[in-house]
Amino acid sequence: MPRHVRNPDPAVPTLATVAALAGVSSATVSRVVNGSSKVSDSHRAAVESAVATLGYVPNRAARTLVTRRTGAVALVVREAVEFGVSDPYLGNFMVAASQSLTGSGIHLVVMVAQDDAEHEAVADYVRAGHVDGVVAISLHDGDPLPEQLSRARIPFVVGGRPPRELPGCCFVDVDNRGGGALAAQRLLDDGRRVIAAVSGPVDMTAAVDRLSGFRGVLRQAGRDTGLVAYGSFTRASGERAMAELLEREPGIDAVFAASDVMALGVQRALLSTGRSVPGDVAVIGFDDIDLAQYGTPPLTTVRQPASAQARLAVESLLVQLHGGDVPEPVTLPTELVVRESG
Amino acid sequence: MPRHVRNPDPAVPTLATVAALAGVSSATVSRVVNGSSKVSDSHRAAVESAVATLGYVPNRAARTLVTRRTGAVALVVREAVEFGVSDPYLGNFMVAASQSLTGSGIHLVVMVAQDDAEHEAVADYVRAGHVDGVVAISLHDGDPLPEQLSRARIPFVVGGRPPRELPGCCFVDVDNRGGGALAAQRLLDDGRRVIAAVSGPVDMTAAVDRLSGFRGVLRQAGRDTGLVAYGSFTRASGERAMAELLEREPGIDAVFAASDVMALGVQRALLSTGRSVPGDVAVIGFDDIDLAQYGTPPLTTVRQPASAQARLAVESLLVQLHGGDVPEPVTLPTELVVRESG
Repeated sequence: MPRHVRNPDPAVPTLATVAALAGVSSATVSRVVNGSSKVSDSHRAAVESAVATLGYVPNRAARTLVTRRTGAVALVVREAVEFGVSDPYLGNFMVAASQSLTGSGIHLVVMVAQDDAEHEAVADYVRAGHVDGVVAISLHDGDPLPEQLSRARIPFVVGGRPPRELPGCCFVDVDNRGGGALAAQRLLDDGRRVIAAVSGPVDMTAAVDRLSGFRGVLRQAGRDTGLVAYGSFTRASGERAMAELLEREPGIDAVFAASDVMALGVQRALLSTGRSVPGDVAVIGFDDIDLAQYGTPPLTTVRQPASAQARLAVESLLVQLHGGDVPEPVTLPTELVVRESG
Repeated sequence: MPRHVRNPDPAVPTLATVAALAGVSSATVSRVVNGSSKVSDSHRAAVESAVATLGYVPNRAARTLVTRRTGAVALVVREAVEFGVSDPYLGNFMVAASQSLTGSGIHLVVMVAQDDAEHEAVADYVRAGHVDGVVAISLHDGDPLPEQLSRARIPFVVGGRPPRELPGCCFVDVDNRGGGALAAQRLLDDGRRVIAAVSGPVDMTAAVDRLSGFRGVLRQAGRDTGLVAYGSFTRASGERAMAELLEREPGIDAVFAASDVMALGVQRALLSTGRSVPGDVAVIGFDDIDLAQYGTPPLTTVRQPASAQARLAVESLLVQLHGGDVPEPVTLPTELVVRESG
């Protein structure tokens, strides 16, 4: 559940207050209030009881805005479409976002923007009123979309920490820094000595945070080697980055890759040089995509809760669409999943 | 290039006429006419020369409609979102459709509808004027979308043969029937004797056409076994269907799967019973997705031109958006790609 900023007038119950009392999500309250049939009887009863207890009056103006507006919210993905289509994290996010809307009467519209010009086109589309709100993911530095939406007063939520701080901007992040730290600690505990990293793009906060958490732990242990190469969250880029690292330092015995997809490329690069994983080189990924367990060997990784992140992002958007306050930013925990590679 | 229905007044040049004379696509003419910078100098020169020769006057009303309307067209996918996200054919189609629009000033909006109710919501969204046109793919029998769009006079193109004949409906299909026939002939030529099929869902024309082309050739050769099981274009369903077929007839020595993804499941089912591919059982898939060459062994398959299909579908939609005639249906050829599995 997202934490919410203070209700301007605590005496007036909001959708979020009802949700808290009923012990259900705001999306569920929204469904009951809007007469959706896709709510379990027990949830409906809990919501109706909370509504009665609190004397909640649905904000009819806001409801009309929602139900009479476009009936659609956009999931905006800032990536080349080839990447957007093939990346498992983005796929999981999209599935969970779409499923979160089931029964809400609101449909998901996916827009992929591969550069600033396309993001501008997306912003134009949104400002023209063709969607009621936006969830934006995979943002890169300098991306103008959050500011544009904010200025246009269009409800939006960012999946991940936005590139620039934006007062009042709602985002749902995962603990990338903590996840990177977990990976580093695991490799240190395993007695690894020459530890390298394959980072994601430096213009993405997720990549920057993962690397900084990772190197922070190494630095504290006096073991930061500075052996870092950069990829673009694709398998081929992970393979290239690993080859580059081995050229710089053939004695590497551990690698943290900032995504599982890159880690699969790292594994391939290592195997192709005759190195064994984890015998010669330990590998830890990030994500815990389905494929991670089918790696050669199965991948030790930092699990990030992509589906929960998507659900919360959608829920935070629905709260705003229903006239609620802008939910405060949330950071979801990550955890180490130990398999065989590291 | 799509073939076009007759120009109502052959004396008046249209976008399509200009495209034909210039030897470029209608989309390219559209880009030049709309002042896009993403056109090569030689294409621009060819278009400008054709415009001058024909005395073509861009339909300004139509241009305004396009450039002043929403600037977006929808790709509507009729599948559960989990399937839409993971299926390689749909992914390839989406990438090619999106790339076809680059530089046209029109953005792609992807909407996934998993049932009739969601398709209704999509239709509402389109009818409310939030997109300028629609490309619909993966339609199932009884799907109301084409009729709804047709009644609402919204430009649309169907990727694949529509479930019901709809006069004046533009679609871009691939030769599924011919592809199924190629697979059957290959298995007969290979001396296979007990030939089975794993079909796609019976409510999809692509599946019906593939199976009918396949069985037609077997029947003519007096070799139709009636050994057919049905899957849903997923790997797991292919695996299940194969297990079911083996229970009915353990002596099967050849299988045609109506998609590569299902063929990968078929291969797994065969290997898990100790059968060798193609030694004991030959397997032929359909699609030629990237993964086909990484099958165990690499997959013999019927290649369908998903990218060309998507490009043509988008082009046929752009022609309509620019006030051109509704292009006639097109069926693109399929071809057998022989690797090792069959």
